[in-house]
Amino acid sequence: MDNALRIYNETNKKIKALSLAFFLIGWDMQTEQPKNADHGEQMATLSEMEYNISTSPEYKDAINTLYENRDSLNELLKHEITVMKENNDKLSKIPVEEYVAFSALTNEFYGVYVEAKRNNDFEKAMPYYQKIIDYRKKYVKWLETPTLSGYNLLLDDFEKGMDICAYDEFFNLLKEKLVPLIAKINSLKKEEFPFAKLHYPAEKQKLYQEYLREVFGFSPDNTVIKESEHPFTSNNTISDVRITNHFYEDNFVSSIFSAIHEMGHGIYELQVGPEIDATMSGGGASMAMHESQSRFMENMVGRSKAFWDRHFGKLQEIFPEQLKDVTADDMYRYVNSVECSLIRTEADELTYGMHVLVRYEMEKAILSGNITAEQIPEKWNALYKEYLGVEVPDDTHGCLQDVHWAYGEFGYFPTYALGSAYGAQIYHAMNQDFDIEQAIAGGDMQKIKDWLKEKIHKYGSSKFSKDILQSATNEPFNPNYYVDYLVKKYTKLYNL
Amino acid sequence: MDNALRIYNETNKKIKALSLAFFLIGWDMQTEQPKNADHGEQMATLSEMEYNISTSPEYKDAINTLYENRDSLNELLKHEITVMKENNDKLSKIPVEEYVAFSALTNEFYGVYVEAKRNNDFEKAMPYYQKIIDYRKKYVKWLETPTLSGYNLLLDDFEKGMDICAYDEFFNLLKEKLVPLIAKINSLKKEEFPFAKLHYPAEKQKLYQEYLREVFGFSPDNTVIKESEHPFTSNNTISDVRITNHFYEDNFVSSIFSAIHEMGHGIYELQVGPEIDATMSGGGASMAMHESQSRFMENMVGRSKAFWDRHFGKLQEIFPEQLKDVTADDMYRYVNSVECSLIRTEADELTYGMHVLVRYEMEKAILSGNITAEQIPEKWNALYKEYLGVEVPDDTHGCLQDVHWAYGEFGYFPTYALGSAYGAQIYHAMNQDFDIEQAIAGGDMQKIKDWLKEKIHKYGSSKFSKDILQSATNEPFNPNYYVDYLVKKYTKLYNL
Repeated sequence: MDNALRIYNETNKKIKALSLAFFLIGWDMQTEQPKNADHGEQMATLSEMEYNISTSPEYKDAINTLYENRDSLNELLKHEITVMKENNDKLSKIPVEEYVAFSALTNEFYGVYVEAKRNNDFEKAMPYYQKIIDYRKKYVKWLETPTLSGYNLLLDDFEKGMDICAYDEFFNLLKEKLVPLIAKINSLKKEEFPFAKLHYPAEKQKLYQEYLREVFGFSPDNTVIKESEHPFTSNNTISDVRITNHFYEDNFVSSIFSAIHEMGHGIYELQVGPEIDATMSGGGASMAMHESQSRFMENMVGRSKAFWDRHFGKLQEIFPEQLKDVTADDMYRYVNSVECSLIRTEADELTYGMHVLVRYEMEKAILSGNITAEQIPEKWNALYKEYLGVEVPDDTHGCLQDVHWAYGEFGYFPTYALGSAYGAQIYHAMNQDFDIEQAIAGGDMQKIKDWLKEKIHKYGSSKFSKDILQSATNEPFNPNYYVDYLVKKYTKLYNL
Repeated sequence: MDNALRIYNETNKKIKALSLAFFLIGWDMQTEQPKNADHGEQMATLSEMEYNISTSPEYKDAINTLYENRDSLNELLKHEITVMKENNDKLSKIPVEEYVAFSALTNEFYGVYVEAKRNNDFEKAMPYYQKIIDYRKKYVKWLETPTLSGYNLLLDDFEKGMDICAYDEFFNLLKEKLVPLIAKINSLKKEEFPFAKLHYPAEKQKLYQEYLREVFGFSPDNTVIKESEHPFTSNNTISDVRITNHFYEDNFVSSIFSAIHEMGHGIYELQVGPEIDATMSGGGASMAMHESQSRFMENMVGRSKAFWDRHFGKLQEIFPEQLKDVTADDMYRYVNSVECSLIRTEADELTYGMHVLVRYEMEKAILSGNITAEQIPEKWNALYKEYLGVEVPDDTHGCLQDVHWAYGEFGYFPTYALGSAYGAQIYHAMNQDFDIEQAIAGGDMQKIKDWLKEKIHKYGSSKFSKDILQSATNEPFNPNYYVDYLVKKYTKLYNL
């Protein structure tokens, strides 16, 4: 046991050391590296080194020994070993040369993807997508068990316990309750917001970002904010959490909500308990739980009436010309205006789930082999027509909009909608303890952050997200909170 | 042999992969990481991993086998193996725990050093300096041979073949020929340059930096320029070379010459032959050769009359108010005005060698045990008084000004003066092939870069720098070119 623990800790130290390399390589790749820089071979070798360390016989033996004796471990280590055992068993089933080649493939693809998206050139990206799909199908075969196979296996990778059956039920509830509401709102005459069509210089948008950084207590002492094609959050330890943003001068709210969204992710990482962060159970509990935190901040806080009553003044101060005759209430209605649109990350809170549904249906079809990479645009466009009633004009605004598939991630998208639903359940529970709108109106973001830290963040990934959700809200996952929240908010907003 | 070559190549691949991690960690640490970020343990583990890979028995055996059979290898590999054998033998003599602890120490010290320099707080830095000195003394003991010991060993580490005897001879020539010239110039009435005392906003200085980037062909496709406390160059491959700069609003020429200096380093790295870059013989041949390239660009190109005749117009365009009544010739005289000052990196070309001499004398005294860390400020200030006749007002402008000792580098500074001397010898040789001032005046920087690429850069470190110097200039190192160049330039400038 002692020997197993020693080997376990020493190996984890190496894995954590390499994670610093991957953290910085990924961050650099998306924010700074020169166009011609080619780190592909070096990255592939680092991946190979990590793979060899993570699947070394000593490490596997150590994990197995600790797993067999898990009842003598403390709760933290017991959970960690259970997860490590499962992950390590999975990893061992992937042939090393395939693992390395896939890492090289996604690394090479990233640059191609950015170009392809910029130039609406799906043809260029297509062979890469096909290779990624082929890999994922092989991956599923390598890892399948009697109880878990196909797309279910990928869904479980991203959110333990979720499968097609559970997601179908969840998405069906959304369809049932939200589609009629969306249709009703769509039938109303759209309110015009002329101020939203004006020009908002990126440099000024950055000033408001700095203000938001203060509002949310996202201190430069522990964080970095930079620019990239697609906003994201990346973290190494609780004292080094980084987010990016993207500024569109003809769409000034994009950078505001991206910033709040990514700060939501970042605050989660910053508030993990230091004793947990030092172990292999640092970082958020799951993708869905992470997304619950980002969307809680973005929508339930950032798109609330109280938020704009308090923080619109500063925005008006930065853009006095553009926002001259605009009120906080105008802003509130604008940032919550419902529109069946093309871009997921720009979608309003109500239709957002439909964008995720499109991707979920796509992934189900791709993994079941019903469509190939070549057919992605056609199927994508058909689903957008079906669920959102919109015509997709080009792939840049269609199937090339998200980077996730280029990273090889399938099974991830559904957690975006699930996270929103977790967020609503968390909101309901928090609101039992104190009046959230009142805290926002009073500028007391700390009160909200403290609650989240105590009930969710401090645990890191030392528990499964379903257990954290249960203890934080005193009940298991219940999607009705999400639907009820949306119906109530939008019924009131549109005077239905 | 085949097996040795296979192990050699496979191990090098890992070392190169880890070098990407160190490249980005170092770059990030100095340009971007949040203040509280602490990557110390992860870095120490990566260093330990690199050490274990570089000193593994298989790798050592492979190097030894290849070394024994070196006559059957091609010239490139033969040289590489000779260097690797020497480096690997050295590395093996350092106890692993000391190696790792030293890496952690310098990493920890970096943040402390930046603070100490900012706050003129030598006391805070002192214990770290002492530990670094203690390590370097132990290092010398571990590595000493019958023919190489003490400070000589560190000098040889940075420039193969140079020792105290050779440096003493070199510095004595500088003292003999330059001290009287400096004294003569110092006795003249100083010309005033009121425009130099004006305010030059950093944002505008950055515009001129962008212009210089075009002048020198330092393309964003392969390079990054960012800000840091102390300008430096860092490179991973020939398609990813990065430099930093620092902007002082009350000293506008500082960022200009730092940019040209670092681009000089960067151009060297960018022009290494691709086939060499792919081996372990990529990168510059030595510190002195590197410095010859940076100072060639900074001084022989950037401080030439022809340069300012051509490029002053753009500077005036960016600063129309500040440079209203200033001519290109005023600028030329200003950037070459001799002043016995405090800061090495801001020193004029003529007195620069004296700043290096101070550091050389300091290092000799430190390594011989004549002074401890505590005595550094006192000795430093005395030497500045002796060689430059100036009173050092505080340690920020004294012994804390350079970061090198904080990195643990002793024996490095002398290569700065040696590099300038190499640069002058290279200038002389190039001038035999074409008129350099004419090329500069005609804006033909490519002609200069091509010559350097063909004669020096393309070789990377596949030959010793003394051999590259010999083949590029058709003679061995001759410090008289440097002294003659300086005497001629400054005699004319000051009408002596």
